[in-house]
Amino acid sequence: MTRPETPVLDRVAGPSDLKSLTDSELSRLAQELRAEVISAVSETGGHLGSSLGVVELTVAIHAVFNTPADKLIWDVGHQCYPHKVLTGRRDRIRTLRQKDGLSGFTKRSESVYDPFGAAHSSTSISAALGFTVGRDMGQPTGDAIAVIGDGSISAGMAYEALNNAGAEGRRMFVILNDNEMSIAPPVGAMSSYLSQLYANEPLARMREMADSFADAMPAPMRDGMRRAKALVSGAHPRGTLFEDLGFDYVGPIDGHDMSQLLPVLRAARARATGPVLIHCCTVKGKGYVPAETSADKYHGVSKFDVATGQQSKSKPNAPSYTSVFGKALTEEAARDPSIVAVTAAMPSGTGVNIMADRFPARVFDVGIAEQHGVTFAAGMAASGLKPFCAIYSTFLQRGYDQVVHDVALQNLPVRFAIDRAGLVGADGATHAGAFDVGYLAALPNMVVMAAADEAELVHMVATAAAHDTGPIAFRYPRGAGVGTELPERGVPLEIGKGRVLQEGEDVAILSFGAHLDEARRATRMLEEDGLTVTLADARFAKPLDTDLIRDLAQSHRMLVTVEQGAQGGFGAMVLHHMAAQGLLDTGLKVRTMTLPDRFIDQASPDQMYLDAGLTAQDMAETVRLALNPAASNVTRLRS
Amino acid sequence: MTRPETPVLDRVAGPSDLKSLTDSELSRLAQELRAEVISAVSETGGHLGSSLGVVELTVAIHAVFNTPADKLIWDVGHQCYPHKVLTGRRDRIRTLRQKDGLSGFTKRSESVYDPFGAAHSSTSISAALGFTVGRDMGQPTGDAIAVIGDGSISAGMAYEALNNAGAEGRRMFVILNDNEMSIAPPVGAMSSYLSQLYANEPLARMREMADSFADAMPAPMRDGMRRAKALVSGAHPRGTLFEDLGFDYVGPIDGHDMSQLLPVLRAARARATGPVLIHCCTVKGKGYVPAETSADKYHGVSKFDVATGQQSKSKPNAPSYTSVFGKALTEEAARDPSIVAVTAAMPSGTGVNIMADRFPARVFDVGIAEQHGVTFAAGMAASGLKPFCAIYSTFLQRGYDQVVHDVALQNLPVRFAIDRAGLVGADGATHAGAFDVGYLAALPNMVVMAAADEAELVHMVATAAAHDTGPIAFRYPRGAGVGTELPERGVPLEIGKGRVLQEGEDVAILSFGAHLDEARRATRMLEEDGLTVTLADARFAKPLDTDLIRDLAQSHRMLVTVEQGAQGGFGAMVLHHMAAQGLLDTGLKVRTMTLPDRFIDQASPDQMYLDAGLTAQDMAETVRLALNPAASNVTRLRS
Repeated sequence: MTRPETPVLDRVAGPSDLKSLTDSELSRLAQELRAEVISAVSETGGHLGSSLGVVELTVAIHAVFNTPADKLIWDVGHQCYPHKVLTGRRDRIRTLRQKDGLSGFTKRSESVYDPFGAAHSSTSISAALGFTVGRDMGQPTGDAIAVIGDGSISAGMAYEALNNAGAEGRRMFVILNDNEMSIAPPVGAMSSYLSQLYANEPLARMREMADSFADAMPAPMRDGMRRAKALVSGAHPRGTLFEDLGFDYVGPIDGHDMSQLLPVLRAARARATGPVLIHCCTVKGKGYVPAETSADKYHGVSKFDVATGQQSKSKPNAPSYTSVFGKALTEEAARDPSIVAVTAAMPSGTGVNIMADRFPARVFDVGIAEQHGVTFAAGMAASGLKPFCAIYSTFLQRGYDQVVHDVALQNLPVRFAIDRAGLVGADGATHAGAFDVGYLAALPNMVVMAAADEAELVHMVATAAAHDTGPIAFRYPRGAGVGTELPERGVPLEIGKGRVLQEGEDVAILSFGAHLDEARRATRMLEEDGLTVTLADARFAKPLDTDLIRDLAQSHRMLVTVEQGAQGGFGAMVLHHMAAQGLLDTGLKVRTMTLPDRFIDQASPDQMYLDAGLTAQDMAETVRLALNPAASNVTRLRS
Repeated sequence: MTRPETPVLDRVAGPSDLKSLTDSELSRLAQELRAEVISAVSETGGHLGSSLGVVELTVAIHAVFNTPADKLIWDVGHQCYPHKVLTGRRDRIRTLRQKDGLSGFTKRSESVYDPFGAAHSSTSISAALGFTVGRDMGQPTGDAIAVIGDGSISAGMAYEALNNAGAEGRRMFVILNDNEMSIAPPVGAMSSYLSQLYANEPLARMREMADSFADAMPAPMRDGMRRAKALVSGAHPRGTLFEDLGFDYVGPIDGHDMSQLLPVLRAARARATGPVLIHCCTVKGKGYVPAETSADKYHGVSKFDVATGQQSKSKPNAPSYTSVFGKALTEEAARDPSIVAVTAAMPSGTGVNIMADRFPARVFDVGIAEQHGVTFAAGMAASGLKPFCAIYSTFLQRGYDQVVHDVALQNLPVRFAIDRAGLVGADGATHAGAFDVGYLAALPNMVVMAAADEAELVHMVATAAAHDTGPIAFRYPRGAGVGTELPERGVPLEIGKGRVLQEGEDVAILSFGAHLDEARRATRMLEEDGLTVTLADARFAKPLDTDLIRDLAQSHRMLVTVEQGAQGGFGAMVLHHMAAQGLLDTGLKVRTMTLPDRFIDQASPDQMYLDAGLTAQDMAETVRLALNPAASNVTRLRS
């Protein structure tokens, strides 16, 4: 594969090398950086479009500010590839999102240039304010700069942070990376002129200047100014929601034009005394035609051919859990007009786009707003509708209080479809769905299921649709199913009943969720040892199948639970129940296999479960160790 | 105690009776309702000021709208006393916040007039939108009306909901109850005139009318108009955070003037086609001088004398955990200038006001913004400061994702001071701190402590201050301590080490947190049975004191854990560990005593723990049953 020519970039070992470059060299550097990112991501896959949109911004910020003393915080962090290349990680950029490689997000443990990691959205302004207070209280830190997209800034959390930062009035910088402006970004002479003026005038006067210049501008740009001013308007007295946010506002400027970016950032850095918001208009995928013309498709890409833009896709053998869910939900919705769906800015990620294609009026995308989304669903349930709230495990954490206070406490029949349960692969630890079983099963009234395979998922969608007396949740993993034949139609499961897949006498393995296949493999291994094994699928973490658990406990020498989740989840529920019932008093050997008590870095899901000590081999070893410690063939220490 | 004269109120059995009253009778009714609420709360204590602020609003809404078909949703719900009196609960209003009495908040199970319960803030608009969609999809529901205060509407969740409701464009009503306007509320002729005009003109024209009238108004009212328009301005094109919210705006009007309220609500109801926000200015504590002149003190009151306003306060024997925390934190802050504190609109509730009195620049009240508050603290920790994030257990649920993603994952040393852990008394199930141990202990890197008494709390504050390598949380209950002598100065505890209070041979009780005194009582009971008991205080749910647990497991016939929290918490951590270590393989009898799997209604904390089956008697019975089922004196069935 030919690599792009990058003579300027080749001279840059770190941000300090940018200080000696001329503005035109910085522009040249940005071009080379873009080519380098395209080349790297073509080999690794990843978030290409977002990264291409901030190439100039990345160069300009590092050229103007004094990182790492100044704290540059990328919101979400998936646009950080050019930043990583510039900050000493170019030699590893082609290991992005791979095992032992660079994270696909910013990460504190990876570089001093990543002062605050991310992956979930809308946290950057809060963190930047934290650093700013630290600076003002004498910590060895410079200015904080948050770069946040127009999607991320729309979440309630970002609003809370702007509100607080404006009230604090401390010198800090928020760069709004706005790539969804309905008008064309401001270009040309007027815009450059304006930027020059910004550079020559004290910041305090910028807003007034913008006012006076607005009238003189061409209409589209004037609209942009108005929209921009509306974004952070400073005309309101203090007090409530839409009060004066207290930010100085600069923009909008063309985020791909170094002749605007550099002077504006320099002026802001030189003169700001309080919080400043700099509004940059950018184009997602900028500078790479296949990405620019198809920003959506290029948000997250597989490896691709640079010349053609063609992505290499390995055709999976089975449909994804996500699509199975989307189709099953659509089928249920076709039968029951009271079924509605809620997503928080993830229609295709969650598969509810499939339902939206057929029933657009019954699918609600609330934006990045999990708190609102959950309570909105609760309100719909209270009105008599049957809402499915489809949110990834890791993002449902954002709406936890609403699940407790608005759904569980009121016993409202909201159906939680929890995708991305367990370890998720390239997105790494920040996206792992590790905690949902614990944080949901602790709640009174809640029913908690996990799908062992995609056929089970279809039945659980039907179960949730039918369960109208209280809240119910079902979890399933990222990626392709195991290839199980799908039922013609989902059939509601009996609440709180598991199923026995095979019966034995020595060991019982009670699996919860999609690790069932791995449990099957462990079963085969143990049978080769001469043990007879009962294999059961619990289906429910709550309510537990108490009959099944008693039977397993009383008729085996050992009981092992396994789940794709952290401690405090399914296994904990089983143990708590068994303790209360005296089922632990007998000397039965019990082990609860969960994710270990540490975060697992990105790799393939299989590699991550290997790392986690949660493979069939690990299960078999656990049984061998417990039943016959001396004879056990311990191949590796469990973490 | 003399009751007020209430001839009009006496004729009102429910909201439908309001339809036949004249406007002047409705005004009279409001006066009587206010007197009734003052009289009732003087007997029960409760949220007086908030309720007095919405008396006229309550009457006007029920007079104009068609509840319960129309869904009236009070945000937070603590202002609902007049609403409860009007909606068939007058006969029980003097049981407010007491065991088996009326809840201090709205509650679905209590009345059809409470379509969506609350207690946490900022949920009403989301729920109202849910009902609105239900109505539009054919559910038997009328219009939804959310009443939300200026404090509640400032939370990110409310912003998310406004944003979504505005974009949906459906007919619904948000009434902003604004009692913190810096200017006087609009009064007098012009204001009434304006309301009349509102009543006579289509809503669509109201904004324009307001514009044209603004210039003609007296200056203070003009400012009010501007502020009001700023609150929900409709001048922005759609797209991002501060986009046009899509609401029609009416106001501000005097929320205590029925001659404004009635015509405006009637006009809005008659003509609205999309979302409407009605901005009412009210005075907290309105109409009762002691409350009006001291809105803060009268937010939550004890029983009081109506004539003098004097509250009856039973002097507790011991200082509250909250004040012990506040003082200990202040002491630590005096020694270490890098200690800072964060509160989410609860400075006095959490005791950080004590630190703020001495070090005002180091205490940050971020408003009702737990999401931001947690990540802001994480940012400060990343800069090198030592933040204490003081949030009630139940409200920390609002910042859960931030605890996971920004604190635990990055292993940042944020100190979580978790007040109101366990059952909290009169505030009931919505405020119970039941889940924190589970949802925190599941997180890698997190240290989780619970204070057995107020002296322990002082040491835990010192422990948290000293623990600078990762996050740490400590929980403690609401109310007075047990009277333990306080140490001169806190001494950091060894991380992950419990303490043994007395040694025995038969039974080990391992207590986590403030139920230690109850465990002591259980110990005495068991000793009277002739058993010898080891009593230990675990101090840590994470990391567990594994040496202590092994010792207890190996040298007793039985191990009982006890905690003031839900299943999946401390006991689950102990069982998971014991299973992994084979400590359950021996036939040791183990029981994990937690809150039951149901929500517990308000009562005194002692009554609530009795209800929960978590008293000394329950512990003793559990041991007797396990050790000698036949001889056990089962006095009542455990839930």
